[in-house]
Amino acid sequence: MNKIITISREFGSGGREFAKRLADELGFSYYDKEIISEIAKESNLNEEYIENVLNSDIVNQFNYTFAHSFTNINQVNTSVEIFNLQNNILKSIAKKGNCVIVGRAADVILEEYNPFKIFIYASDEYKLQRVKEKELHDNSCSNKDVLKMIKKIDKTRASNYELISCKTWGDKSNYDLCINTSNLDIKVIVKQITNYVSEYFK
Amino acid sequence: MNKIITISREFGSGGREFAKRLADELGFSYYDKEIISEIAKESNLNEEYIENVLNSDIVNQFNYTFAHSFTNINQVNTSVEIFNLQNNILKSIAKKGNCVIVGRAADVILEEYNPFKIFIYASDEYKLQRVKEKELHDNSCSNKDVLKMIKKIDKTRASNYELISCKTWGDKSNYDLCINTSNLDIKVIVKQITNYVSEYFK
Repeated sequence: MNKIITISREFGSGGREFAKRLADELGFSYYDKEIISEIAKESNLNEEYIENVLNSDIVNQFNYTFAHSFTNINQVNTSVEIFNLQNNILKSIAKKGNCVIVGRAADVILEEYNPFKIFIYASDEYKLQRVKEKELHDNSCSNKDVLKMIKKIDKTRASNYELISCKTWGDKSNYDLCINTSNLDIKVIVKQITNYVSEYFK
Repeated sequence: MNKIITISREFGSGGREFAKRLADELGFSYYDKEIISEIAKESNLNEEYIENVLNSDIVNQFNYTFAHSFTNINQVNTSVEIFNLQNNILKSIAKKGNCVIVGRAADVILEEYNPFKIFIYASDEYKLQRVKEKELHDNSCSNKDVLKMIKKIDKTRASNYELISCKTWGDKSNYDLCINTSNLDIKVIVKQITNYVSEYFK
């Protein structure tokens, strides 16, 4: 069976950098935005639209639709189709070879592959600093606003994960290892974790 | 400053074995029951009594006392004295040299030492098996009863930790690393984590 590592992460914790470096270190394939491109190919939908659907709060979308007498039912159908496609694509990725997959509730969708499940998190101070430096590239937003955005993104991730898995996003019992990136350089963490993960697959 | 590692753990997860092995691997002193013996020496109280006080639900003790018109006030005073002694002993341990400390909310009490904080946890199945094998040494208890006992012990740990720290016990944001022992041998985990911890203290 192929070796699958899933990385769930708080926004701003450096989970994506961690995942990319871990994949490089192990010589595994790396999947993040690539999944969106695959869905776009299969569905003939626009990548930006797909990303928007996957990263918005699905429960809210559904509630809105049902509250408005099904006027938005096509939108819901498209969302369901996108989620189904995502599941199929994740499963075909898992069949292809060893890989590291970021987000997408892959830890649950690929459970039959016994993935090694990692959750990456950090302190609010660390995430704030990192998001301002790496994502926003400017200092015009107030810290309060940036933190509010971080919490909102994580709330949506949590909500969608719960919908797919019936589990609580970020609850450590769902993962093999939960790593706080606040106090150590991600490069250093990856170097140390590579052997740990390899032991799991022995 | 001395290097302090604190190990918090779910009952039955193998946290104590992990801590002992990690201390041996790093050549650090190891403190667990030794703290009880120190409190006994300082207070002239019986070790078993001290252990009983520290491992019982302090909030419940207080509530009981206040609900019964202070008839039990001496008991509460003794409990407070034991907790104060424990804090002082933890601080003198931290001053002595590099060490690994199990439980006792040492991660919070020794916060000024910037300890590396680890939380050890495992699945219910793993904990059930381990407790039956290593603690009970027999099979006469039902799985349901053993799990109930595990949850009760953890509930008390959580309650006392919260009282001391105003933080949530087991909430991953309080720790540098949370390790699930369900799927890898503890000896193997310790070997892999030793370098990780060393990097933190560099």
